[in-house]
Amino acid sequence: MASDGIVYLDHNATTPLSPRALAAMMPFLSGGFANPSSPSPEGEDSRRAVSESREKMAAFLGCRPPEIVFTGGGTEGNVTAILSALALSGDRREILSTPVEHPSVMQLLDRLGRQGYRVRFFPVDGDGCVDSRDLSGMAGSDTALIVMMWANNETGVLFPVEEAAAVGRSVGARVHSDAVAAAGKVPIDLATVGVDTLSLSGHKIYGPKGTGALFVRKGTPFEPLFPGSQERKRRSGTENVPGIAGMGEAAEESRSFLSSGSVRETGTLRDRLERSVLELFPGAFLNGKNSDGSRVPHVTNIGFSGMSGEKLLHRLVSAGIRASTGSACSTGSMEPSHVLLSMGLSREEALSSLRFSLGRQTTPGQIARTIDALVRAGRDLGLVAEGAAPGKGGAR
Amino acid sequence: MASDGIVYLDHNATTPLSPRALAAMMPFLSGGFANPSSPSPEGEDSRRAVSESREKMAAFLGCRPPEIVFTGGGTEGNVTAILSALALSGDRREILSTPVEHPSVMQLLDRLGRQGYRVRFFPVDGDGCVDSRDLSGMAGSDTALIVMMWANNETGVLFPVEEAAAVGRSVGARVHSDAVAAAGKVPIDLATVGVDTLSLSGHKIYGPKGTGALFVRKGTPFEPLFPGSQERKRRSGTENVPGIAGMGEAAEESRSFLSSGSVRETGTLRDRLERSVLELFPGAFLNGKNSDGSRVPHVTNIGFSGMSGEKLLHRLVSAGIRASTGSACSTGSMEPSHVLLSMGLSREEALSSLRFSLGRQTTPGQIARTIDALVRAGRDLGLVAEGAAPGKGGAR
Repeated sequence: MASDGIVYLDHNATTPLSPRALAAMMPFLSGGFANPSSPSPEGEDSRRAVSESREKMAAFLGCRPPEIVFTGGGTEGNVTAILSALALSGDRREILSTPVEHPSVMQLLDRLGRQGYRVRFFPVDGDGCVDSRDLSGMAGSDTALIVMMWANNETGVLFPVEEAAAVGRSVGARVHSDAVAAAGKVPIDLATVGVDTLSLSGHKIYGPKGTGALFVRKGTPFEPLFPGSQERKRRSGTENVPGIAGMGEAAEESRSFLSSGSVRETGTLRDRLERSVLELFPGAFLNGKNSDGSRVPHVTNIGFSGMSGEKLLHRLVSAGIRASTGSACSTGSMEPSHVLLSMGLSREEALSSLRFSLGRQTTPGQIARTIDALVRAGRDLGLVAEGAAPGKGGAR
Repeated sequence: MASDGIVYLDHNATTPLSPRALAAMMPFLSGGFANPSSPSPEGEDSRRAVSESREKMAAFLGCRPPEIVFTGGGTEGNVTAILSALALSGDRREILSTPVEHPSVMQLLDRLGRQGYRVRFFPVDGDGCVDSRDLSGMAGSDTALIVMMWANNETGVLFPVEEAAAVGRSVGARVHSDAVAAAGKVPIDLATVGVDTLSLSGHKIYGPKGTGALFVRKGTPFEPLFPGSQERKRRSGTENVPGIAGMGEAAEESRSFLSSGSVRETGTLRDRLERSVLELFPGAFLNGKNSDGSRVPHVTNIGFSGMSGEKLLHRLVSAGIRASTGSACSTGSMEPSHVLLSMGLSREEALSSLRFSLGRQTTPGQIARTIDALVRAGRDLGLVAEGAAPGKGGAR
């Protein structure tokens, strides 16, 4: 947690660095600093740390260690994979994607559109979902690349990545998935989901900021964004040994978490928060499909009809609760979320919405406190009736 | 130092993380983890850390804080600056550079050449220098970009970047300098040297690995490599707050070091090592010009005629001395250095060469030990006469 007494429900913005990850980093921050390229015993220590981290990351993703390329973050992985696929796609000029990708991907697609690529989007329904039946109809012999996030960062909705991968294979297009908002929340098994490339970010799985991993399936043609010798010539630059060691440990820890029952407990808490708010706030609505397996278990995105999400968030912040208006990355802009607009929300509805993203350390007491703070804020702002109380509502 | 008893003379490969830099990182590794985009007191702490680091980096480089973009390393800065300049250069198709840039830059230029850019190189003489009189004759109205490193990473030779910047301005071309091997070793004052962009790496100035800074002069047209909202829309991705804090502190410390007399002491030790080796080894030769102000003060690159540099290096490693054959980034390949070949060395001469790069903590005793180890290795390998001894040579 950020500090004592703070209820941190903004894990999709960033997660705390886990003590285990930090412990894995410390030997390379306070002692061993050798460049892994160095032909010395210390260099060997650094090489071993990078190698062990690669094995952990591969186990986490269900792939083989040489298929992992360490990067400086999720965005770098996305940009690398997208530009590589296009550079090696011959005459194909079409990119298929969803209209709800992360802003960094959306802006890159926008630029590529201006450069002459034809960028088309799969339809997203009111629940934030892409229907897998829509995929094959759009892809064809001009399709160079399909870009589909594994889970949406704002709503938590999961996408039919496996089906997209099959469609991509059938038309000879590359398929890239941004798994930044999914990794550590739902299992990712690249042995069964046939994407060509996939990216994740260290700091969203309780690892260090400034780290990421890019999966590149064996045999996938690849052009590095940073040409050079490191990472088997796929990503130049001195390896961030402490960061890589920390992210590997975080991946290992995330794997344990996912295979334990704890992930279900997070889902139970999320559901409790969601139900309570929907019951207590008249006109409150859920952004994102609510059925088994349709979302990651730790996120809820709720619209508070007739309310400024920003205003409500400020009240929560004062009460020690941390959440988010849409994606943290666009905070400060006051532009409504492109994700929610794509789902058919009005500008006002989108601006009334808040995202709560729970984490491994979230407790029932914190959820009760959050519901309580929301109800008090709602009363103050005239949105919740005086009689409404968590006990009478859904805080069960 | 890597460990007790090790003489680390490979600071151009990487430097140890300074305790001050680590101390600046720790609050953001073990406590405050908030995303700087978060509208909360913790987010404000992260924003302040990033902002303070930007001020320190700007003071270090003689520019203004908004001109600093934080990156994931020196390579990312170079790739970003080069691709941005070309994307915004209209019809211009020529790139001028030196044939001795870092391998990551050379490989990018090579790719750009295959993509249709005309890449031409300024001549490099036998001392590894570029004559500033050669610059203006080559640049013209088709020149999009001039890429010139501030100092060479293998020889330490300094380049006429100020003159290149003037030439670039005169023909309307962008000018980028890779200052990874110069930062912290010689003063860099961007108020007087008019390059458009300049990159450096955190881990070469005693800061953390996986961090870098890209200077983008105010008014320079710029296209981000990672489009998105962070860094004033110039570099997307959640800011690596601990890394940025550590690099800022390292920049501040480097500024103090450069303005103290200590940097001259490093130069004195380097000169002692260099003179001793040149006197004790028959046929040994210096790679790089030896005159006042022609090189950074901490590097020497020496050829050991008739000898395998690799073999000599292995003897040194066994004796606890760390140095390098050419650039660390190509270690393992056994290809001769492109830098030394460009200077006119034969393949054998290039492969006989070793780089010693001193650091702030290098002591006279360590230099004496290095000379001693070299002489013993030379004797064992039949390269140095039995009578030769450091005391008779140049270890003064």
